[in-house]
Amino acid sequence: MRVFNFSAGPAALPEEVLRQAADEMLDWHGSGMSVMEMSHRGADFMSIHQEALVDLRELLEVPASHHILFLQGGGIGENAIVPMNLFGSKPRADFVITGSWSQKSYKEAQKYGTAHIAASGKTEDGFTRAPARAEWQLSEDPAYVHLCTNETINGVETFDIPDLGDIPLVADASSHILSRPMDIAKYGVLYAGAQKNIGIAGVTVVIVREDMLDRAMAICPSAFEWKTVAENNSMFNTPPTYAIYISGLVFKWLKRQGGLKAMEARNMEKAKLLYDVIDSSGFYINKVERHARSRMNVPFFLADESRNEDFLAGAKARGLLQLKGHKSVGGMRASIYNAVPLEGVKALVEYMKEFEARCA
Amino acid sequence: MRVFNFSAGPAALPEEVLRQAADEMLDWHGSGMSVMEMSHRGADFMSIHQEALVDLRELLEVPASHHILFLQGGGIGENAIVPMNLFGSKPRADFVITGSWSQKSYKEAQKYGTAHIAASGKTEDGFTRAPARAEWQLSEDPAYVHLCTNETINGVETFDIPDLGDIPLVADASSHILSRPMDIAKYGVLYAGAQKNIGIAGVTVVIVREDMLDRAMAICPSAFEWKTVAENNSMFNTPPTYAIYISGLVFKWLKRQGGLKAMEARNMEKAKLLYDVIDSSGFYINKVERHARSRMNVPFFLADESRNEDFLAGAKARGLLQLKGHKSVGGMRASIYNAVPLEGVKALVEYMKEFEARCA
Repeated sequence: MRVFNFSAGPAALPEEVLRQAADEMLDWHGSGMSVMEMSHRGADFMSIHQEALVDLRELLEVPASHHILFLQGGGIGENAIVPMNLFGSKPRADFVITGSWSQKSYKEAQKYGTAHIAASGKTEDGFTRAPARAEWQLSEDPAYVHLCTNETINGVETFDIPDLGDIPLVADASSHILSRPMDIAKYGVLYAGAQKNIGIAGVTVVIVREDMLDRAMAICPSAFEWKTVAENNSMFNTPPTYAIYISGLVFKWLKRQGGLKAMEARNMEKAKLLYDVIDSSGFYINKVERHARSRMNVPFFLADESRNEDFLAGAKARGLLQLKGHKSVGGMRASIYNAVPLEGVKALVEYMKEFEARCA
Repeated sequence: MRVFNFSAGPAALPEEVLRQAADEMLDWHGSGMSVMEMSHRGADFMSIHQEALVDLRELLEVPASHHILFLQGGGIGENAIVPMNLFGSKPRADFVITGSWSQKSYKEAQKYGTAHIAASGKTEDGFTRAPARAEWQLSEDPAYVHLCTNETINGVETFDIPDLGDIPLVADASSHILSRPMDIAKYGVLYAGAQKNIGIAGVTVVIVREDMLDRAMAICPSAFEWKTVAENNSMFNTPPTYAIYISGLVFKWLKRQGGLKAMEARNMEKAKLLYDVIDSSGFYINKVERHARSRMNVPFFLADESRNEDFLAGAKARGLLQLKGHKSVGGMRASIYNAVPLEGVKALVEYMKEFEARCA
């Protein structure tokens, strides 16, 4: 029996993808070997890699000006990799802080140059808003402005992406990439760890505009230098082949679902169900301002936190797993990524209503 | 039908491991989810991770003085990660060059300090020997001496590991780790990309002595700083969970095979079969000196290279795949890692004899 998995990442994958991976495990397409065993330079894996690139480009409508790279190290790796790639001649950047992840990016960048906070969404209730462009106080001539477009821990999503003209915008989109269409042309760099909406932990997608490739610091490791990675089609070092394969299966699944517009509609429906039950009384609480509520990560608190353990135990008994909030904020969190089905959210909402009624 | 896969990496995996991975894909041990979907902070994955660590420690007899870390970035990543971790106060290291991989390590280290060639195994026939300790010309007080204990491309393995006293020895053991017992106490740091003898591409095992953890450069990315990784039990950033799981399955398989002494005996038998047929006439050529012949990667040339394509086509027709040599050296290469069964090597040797007879 499969459970409903609300983990923030690594997270639920489409069952179809898992079935296909299991079916192909010993012999991929008559090759006589597993994808795990394939040389990354061989024709079989090259075709898997190429198809993943083509499908991702199509799904996200990535313009020709941007390369798609597969790297390793995840979002936390990129927190260093981004400044090492962009601080070559201007070692300074601006950060819009909307939660824990952008804060980490801000802190790590200080190893490589000057990091300036352009705006913060922190209020007395924690991170609850996405500062609008008018609030951003940019420094003079920064190498880039960094933004985490969806804060996994705090449940803050930025929907309104400004045009910064000549200043490159760098976005950590780890926890909402592929959840809806995005205008990639607005970004100099957009990166995402795979373990939420793309595939499995261990591969990072980096979408980088051609003109961002000539700005690396001398100390940037070759394996993480985007220019080197781009020139070698993500094969400068051995790529995480199986993780790329799983990503490719997810991309095909997304295309079968109707692409990102269809996913967006489904994700809006799922998120609405959840926020509606939270807002229906004071029993559950989410303080994120409505304009910035994440469709992927829905943190909430029980007004009476002494019921937390009861809530989690009851959820677990129904196969609703991984609902405990991040340790830094407490409470609950339901991550409802693409692969969490509508039925999963419905089951959660039913349980939440029932639990509330039981406590009345 | 499964083929015999002589790829240098990503490479053959034990069929038992693949079957188990396929069987557990949708539901690991009644958890209702795939290992791919598990939070790295959850009890299920933590147990998988812990068991992999314990089994690897047991297999390699890693002393308590050494941490075992799971990182990302592979051997090429470590080429930068090693100096960034060890050049904090002494930005200089010595390199023993035995082939393409140690050469790459030497080159990358120059980004972070002074790299000195202590010895080279290069001859007019290419890299054909492992310079003995007596030949190493160490610089004064280096941060470490780097060695690639098995050169995947050149087929040069170093069996005699000297004791350098207070100077830490750093080894890239990517392509022969777990092929035989090793005295880990001799190394300050030993690292290995997983995609040869450990598991799948995307995870790097780093075994590091406690006193190596306080030497990092300020610019070392947090995700790759061994001290940070060690303090967080390889969970500072999301680890490549599925790759760690597959490694764990391989470790269990190795234990069922009788451990590393048993693997060494089997690997010696496999290598002997192959080198014997190469040495039996002048038809096939391997110029590596006998003391340094790799038991894992056996490069060889046909004396008449015009027959190369014929040789490869005939091999492929028998399900003997990935025998083409690395593009930088040409010829052929049979990588006969742990997971390549004796029958695979026998089939290759039979084919080689037959091909030679046919050409006579």
